[in-house]
Amino acid sequence: MQNTTQDMTQMTQAPELIVDRWFNADQPLTLAALRGRVVFLHAFQMLCPGCVSHGTPQAQKAHRVFQASGLQVIGLHTVFEHHAAMTPVSLEAFIHEYKLSFPVAVDRPGDPGPLPQTMQAYAFQGTPSAVIIGRDGRIRHRAFGAEDDMVMGARVAAALSEP
Amino acid sequence: MQNTTQDMTQMTQAPELIVDRWFNADQPLTLAALRGRVVFLHAFQMLCPGCVSHGTPQAQKAHRVFQASGLQVIGLHTVFEHHAAMTPVSLEAFIHEYKLSFPVAVDRPGDPGPLPQTMQAYAFQGTPSAVIIGRDGRIRHRAFGAEDDMVMGARVAAALSEP
Amino acid sequence: MQNTTQDMTQMTQAPELIVDRWFNADQPLTLAALRGRVVFLHAFQMLCPGCVSHGTPQAQKAHRVFQASGLQVIGLHTVFEHHAAMTPVSLEAFIHEYKLSFPVAVDRPGDPGPLPQTMQAYAFQGTPSAVIIGRDGRIRHRAFGAEDDMVMGARVAAALSEP
Amino acid sequence: MQNTTQDMTQMTQAPELIVDRWFNADQPLTLAALRGRVVFLHAFQMLCPGCVSHGTPQAQKAHRVFQASGLQVIGLHTVFEHHAAMTPVSLEAFIHEYKLSFPVAVDRPGDPGPLPQTMQAYAFQGTPSAVIIGRDGRIRHRAFGAEDDMVMGARVAAALSEP
Repeated sequence: MQNTTQDMTQMTQAPELIVDRWFNADQPLTLAALRGRVVFLHAFQMLCPGCVSHGTPQAQKAHRVFQASGLQVIGLHTVFEHHAAMTPVSLEAFIHEYKLSFPVAVDRPGDPGPLPQTMQAYAFQGTPSAVIIGRDGRIRHRAFGAEDDMVMGARVAAALSEP
Repeated sequence: MQNTTQDMTQMTQAPELIVDRWFNADQPLTLAALRGRVVFLHAFQMLCPGCVSHGTPQAQKAHRVFQASGLQVIGLHTVFEHHAAMTPVSLEAFIHEYKLSFPVAVDRPGDPGPLPQTMQAYAFQGTPSAVIIGRDGRIRHRAFGAEDDMVMGARVAAALSEP
Repeated sequence: MQNTTQDMTQMTQAPELIVDRWFNADQPLTLAALRGRVVFLHAFQMLCPGCVSHGTPQAQKAHRVFQASGLQVIGLHTVFEHHAAMTPVSLEAFIHEYKLSFPVAVDRPGDPGPLPQTMQAYAFQGTPSAVIIGRDGRIRHRAFGAEDDMVMGARVAAALSEP
Repeated sequence: MQNTTQDMTQMTQAPELIVDRWFNADQPLTLAALRGRVVFLHAFQMLCPGCVSHGTPQAQKAHRVFQASGLQVIGLHTVFEHHAAMTPVSLEAFIHEYKLSFPVAVDRPGDPGPLPQTMQAYAFQGTPSAVIIGRDGRIRHRAFGAEDDMVMGARVAAALSEP
């Protein structure tokens, strides 16, 4: 619960999502339209072991725990390696098999270069990455790798407690 | 994150601790003296398997995660069975072996009856039990049994965010 | 460690593998050529959650623990659903990301029908499925779903102890 | 599954148990009377975290898995520290709360010195320690600390497969 770096990142407006396709969503979501709500953005790859074992289940849990409190969880499939192995066809089966119920966006491929465009905009170091976006659309917290459930729950609750 | 029952329990003043002995504390702690701070009270028995595997490590983690945010974690050894097996001598070794670093109180034995006095005052159903007490000394949340780390982290953070 | 059904299945010759492609193998493996060695056959799908969390790590552990004792672990990718989502291209990335080091075979697709051919020959009920094949090429044990590591270790050791 | 050191320890006759008291046993057990059966000896202390989280559940699992195969699991409470905290009264409650169903022996206190007598005879380095004793009463394997379930299952099965 160090706050120094958070205070700095709070200055940063969360870049808009650049998305090719959505799953588990009736229509595309935008951060602009979600202003006023807290957003938990979970960047992952379906063949990233640390995502499958920890990050993605944590996002699913956050969706279940905080849905009634107004949190919007968004999965972002940021494929930056093995592109042919993790197509939307494979992702759709992954979402089905792992019973993910929150909206999942497919990050738009980079052109040129392997890094997809939203991943570039956020400068993610890899997957899983998590971003908590406050009601004002600014970044409250960002993390790369596994983060403890208790810590993550506290960060989300702190963002939700803001007016 | 249901709030209905919480709202009701928020009406309840947390009963003062009735304690025979402290470990990991220079002097006895009282809820009265802690007014203004959030308190996480972890009631346990050293031979309760659900405490050892889940509740007590969760309290230790809360102590580590939220110490800088001003949370006061208090362990309360509420022996209501196997009294001769869980004396303060055994508890002291347990605290040492499990490397507990938060203050631990020995609940005062009941007279007569097996239930210790603080346990009676809080009407705990068993161990582990957790109570989150707000800055105003009133109960924000109480739970019996295992509670998820993410949920507990959120509850503590919510209490900490209150003025 | 019930043996009744095992005694019955011990009568069954293990069907030969029907394979389109191998990973982690210099040349195709056949049960015929492995006669005299104990074989641990792990049937899985890369998008099967129970495989990824338990069955495939168990096979990898068996490979590590029993390699010096002569056990041959073989993974068999038996795709019977989401065929377009689990192509060999995706499997290759899965093997890389999960650091699988034992040989993995791609079960030959069924014609017609969704069930691949080795899966049909073994009448697997689903994934993960495990088969232990004795030095004589006969089935010692078969299981569908999660099996405890201690039990599996004992079954492999029992097969290895046969002359 | 290294065998070099095992081959050496196979030369060693397992020292007889020196025991003050038994739980979960109608009458005292002796290794002499158990000749012809494989014995799994689990040395532990009730306040040793690594015993409670891993070693003792592993012994309980071995008791459940291999009971029908004739394995005799024996717990040995080898208190070498915090003696006043881990008396037989406390041990009895521990056995009850953790639902241990295999026989548990109380190692006879050392005189003088803190190490109990069976622990001295086996030269255990600490707890948990495990010993597998073959049908001939000789030591097949000994280990200090956590050992993987698959490996332990294999070691027990190998001992059980001996004539």
